[in-house]
Amino acid sequence: MSNKPSIPKGTRDFSPIEMARRNYIFDVIKKTYKKYGFQQIETPAMENLSTLVGTGGDESDKLIFKILNSGDYLAKADEKALQEKNANGLTKSIAEKALHYDLTVPFARYVVQNQNDITFPFRRFQIQPVWRADRPQRGRYREFYQCDADIIGSDSLLNEVDLIKIIDDVFTELFQGKLNYTVSVNNRKILQGIVESVGEQDKFEQIVVAIDKLDKIGIEKVIKELNDIGLSEKSVLSLMDLLAVTKGSSNLYEMALTQLEFLSQKINNTINGQKGIEELEFVFEKIQQLGLKTAHVKFDPTLARGLGYYTGTIIEVKVANFPSICGGGRYDDLTGKFGLKNVSGVGISFGADRIYDVLLDNNLYPEFKGDSTQVLFVNFGEKEQDYCLPLLFQLRDAGINAEIYPDKVKLQKQMTFANNKAINYVVIVGSDEMETGKLTVKNMETGTQEALTISELIEKCIN
Amino acid sequence: MSNKPSIPKGTRDFSPIEMARRNYIFDVIKKTYKKYGFQQIETPAMENLSTLVGTGGDESDKLIFKILNSGDYLAKADEKALQEKNANGLTKSIAEKALHYDLTVPFARYVVQNQNDITFPFRRFQIQPVWRADRPQRGRYREFYQCDADIIGSDSLLNEVDLIKIIDDVFTELFQGKLNYTVSVNNRKILQGIVESVGEQDKFEQIVVAIDKLDKIGIEKVIKELNDIGLSEKSVLSLMDLLAVTKGSSNLYEMALTQLEFLSQKINNTINGQKGIEELEFVFEKIQQLGLKTAHVKFDPTLARGLGYYTGTIIEVKVANFPSICGGGRYDDLTGKFGLKNVSGVGISFGADRIYDVLLDNNLYPEFKGDSTQVLFVNFGEKEQDYCLPLLFQLRDAGINAEIYPDKVKLQKQMTFANNKAINYVVIVGSDEMETGKLTVKNMETGTQEALTISELIEKCIN
Repeated sequence: MSNKPSIPKGTRDFSPIEMARRNYIFDVIKKTYKKYGFQQIETPAMENLSTLVGTGGDESDKLIFKILNSGDYLAKADEKALQEKNANGLTKSIAEKALHYDLTVPFARYVVQNQNDITFPFRRFQIQPVWRADRPQRGRYREFYQCDADIIGSDSLLNEVDLIKIIDDVFTELFQGKLNYTVSVNNRKILQGIVESVGEQDKFEQIVVAIDKLDKIGIEKVIKELNDIGLSEKSVLSLMDLLAVTKGSSNLYEMALTQLEFLSQKINNTINGQKGIEELEFVFEKIQQLGLKTAHVKFDPTLARGLGYYTGTIIEVKVANFPSICGGGRYDDLTGKFGLKNVSGVGISFGADRIYDVLLDNNLYPEFKGDSTQVLFVNFGEKEQDYCLPLLFQLRDAGINAEIYPDKVKLQKQMTFANNKAINYVVIVGSDEMETGKLTVKNMETGTQEALTISELIEKCIN
Repeated sequence: MSNKPSIPKGTRDFSPIEMARRNYIFDVIKKTYKKYGFQQIETPAMENLSTLVGTGGDESDKLIFKILNSGDYLAKADEKALQEKNANGLTKSIAEKALHYDLTVPFARYVVQNQNDITFPFRRFQIQPVWRADRPQRGRYREFYQCDADIIGSDSLLNEVDLIKIIDDVFTELFQGKLNYTVSVNNRKILQGIVESVGEQDKFEQIVVAIDKLDKIGIEKVIKELNDIGLSEKSVLSLMDLLAVTKGSSNLYEMALTQLEFLSQKINNTINGQKGIEELEFVFEKIQQLGLKTAHVKFDPTLARGLGYYTGTIIEVKVANFPSICGGGRYDDLTGKFGLKNVSGVGISFGADRIYDVLLDNNLYPEFKGDSTQVLFVNFGEKEQDYCLPLLFQLRDAGINAEIYPDKVKLQKQMTFANNKAINYVVIVGSDEMETGKLTVKNMETGTQEALTISELIEKCIN
């Protein structure tokens, strides 16, 4: 093989600097999750195909990467499907395993499988890659990381409050107050109430699909779509009227509460609507009492986040010019598929890859000096090398990242190496230095040199 | 689906306590790698199948998990293979991608693909899962983690010295001096010299395969195998004599050097043998000068580590009653397959899963208190909850992991929750506490209670 090697479409390598940035994001999210009492778990990349299919609908099933059985996989292949060259029909008989396409379904499977060992309410977080056979495009990958936190086994709306506070904490730290972001909140029951109050509950799912597109295609096209579904002009107008709750004060919590109050009067004839409004009022009141650091939180009755499995609160976080960077909500029956009924959960997921791009575009990464090599000893040959080796290990034993250039090559090449690797200090040891015990230490940022003992150098690096 | 859900054979879920233990191992390894100037990269889980096959031989190819192409994968299937139900022949045409089975081949591919952006010598580390369609058994999984460090683009034996020092640093920290372990070192060229000196270089590979089994099947069966290969009795005796270098002092470095000296006299008629001995002498001399903290290092001329791609130094780490927990060596032409010739590399890989078991069996894990929730507020109802919420967030903003029980349930249930989650302090707030502002704080380990203000509690948790 002499072709230039490549990687599959939609996948990526991560270089050292990219890893440092990613780890920075993961560390902020992990630390925050732990602060809120969440515990980390991991599930295998591979699940049984039967665990994954039929959870998110046919479209989702197509996105699942299947793993070919090992050995003579054709021996047990579905004969009829094979004859008819029916790929869809054949798959199940030649691929028992598949890569998970999200972390929610594996988590539901985990909860059911380990229900006797778990203390509920269970706060778990999970940061792992997921795989989707999606068409790759800018910002959409076939292998990407999700950072999920869920609370399972508690109906309390305090969990929703915690999740919004987590979002506030994470983006306050990552954005350092330099970037505006909006946390939109809705409740699936309010959407139901709105649709019921205009008497179109039979078309609920289609209406939600249409409303979900408001951001993307604009109000006129949504109205056309609603007409196409078969809604009367009166219904469409009432619907649009109810969704257009724009009144309110300039304080966002108060505005949200005013909007909810306004909407309440219109849909108080529906049980779902009233329940949804009560739930959201509780969340907004608590958030108002506790305060937020940098998040702009708002009530958005048009927020649907697809059909999915949400049954209560829905949350979505956006910054300008980017798709959603975090989202989540409450679901009432996630584990039902695996035989455990009536367990309510609520969770959020940070999109690490999009957050990565947001921070890069807005120049919000800190410097990662401590992560790479701090000190390089140049290599002038055997004698100098033998003098430097014990000093090198003194630095390392003091916890300082250090190395010696392993080969005796031109100084210029060694200095270029130090530059490219963004090393802070280069130690130059020749016959003078070996005689005096004072090392020549070059600061690579300022270009200045000074003579230091090894102890002085250690002190310099640690402070 | 109402069956109890399960996961594929040979894969595992990791619970919170298992995650804490694994992260502890990863953190020690990561920190040490960084101390030696290694930088982290990640490569995708999926590679093109053509990148992976033909690198480790036919047996390795069978261990690769292939990923079924998306969509109508039968449309482009190899018609002949399909007709003949030849699974082996069909695979390439229906599965273009596969899961990597180690981190070395993806790294070689990465180096070639990014050669213009990399500053050599390149010290990289990589900690990721790998997948192998192996028969699962105790201690052998189909999905497991590797922790690799390699230096590529330098022939210097100082790199070998660094790797042995890394092994010493990692196991000194993980084993805390409470567990003996041996670092066996050999050089592939010494093996070649030995075989050449008995005039059996034509059978080198078969001889290495036989010698590699010494540990497993014992000397008599190895001798039988050598006879079966067609070695004369004289050759076998000479071979066994050369491999049995047991003379030497009780100091391990000196013993190794004595053994090397002894062997040198016997195989100094072979260029490979002399070269291998010179290389190992350099490594042992440097290690002797620098010293080791806890590692017992020894020269083992029978160490082969399979046929693999090693061409120089070979390293293997063992503790009693376990298979190898770390291994590695030097390879001269890893990137050749991808069109980049003459780039030498040397590396090691820690087996995180085996190290996990070693630490567990020997009771060597530290307590992971800081990782989980430190403080739980019990929930007596709405009024108490509203009083506690701002206090809860004071703790969190001080960096303390804390939560409130989200629902008003029996105290007993909340205390059981705290116990199961190994929470340090439980805060009990009733009407008395709300009046005085002094919280009742129960130490869950000692069972004692005290009355503390929120500031006093914060101080207690931080210290």
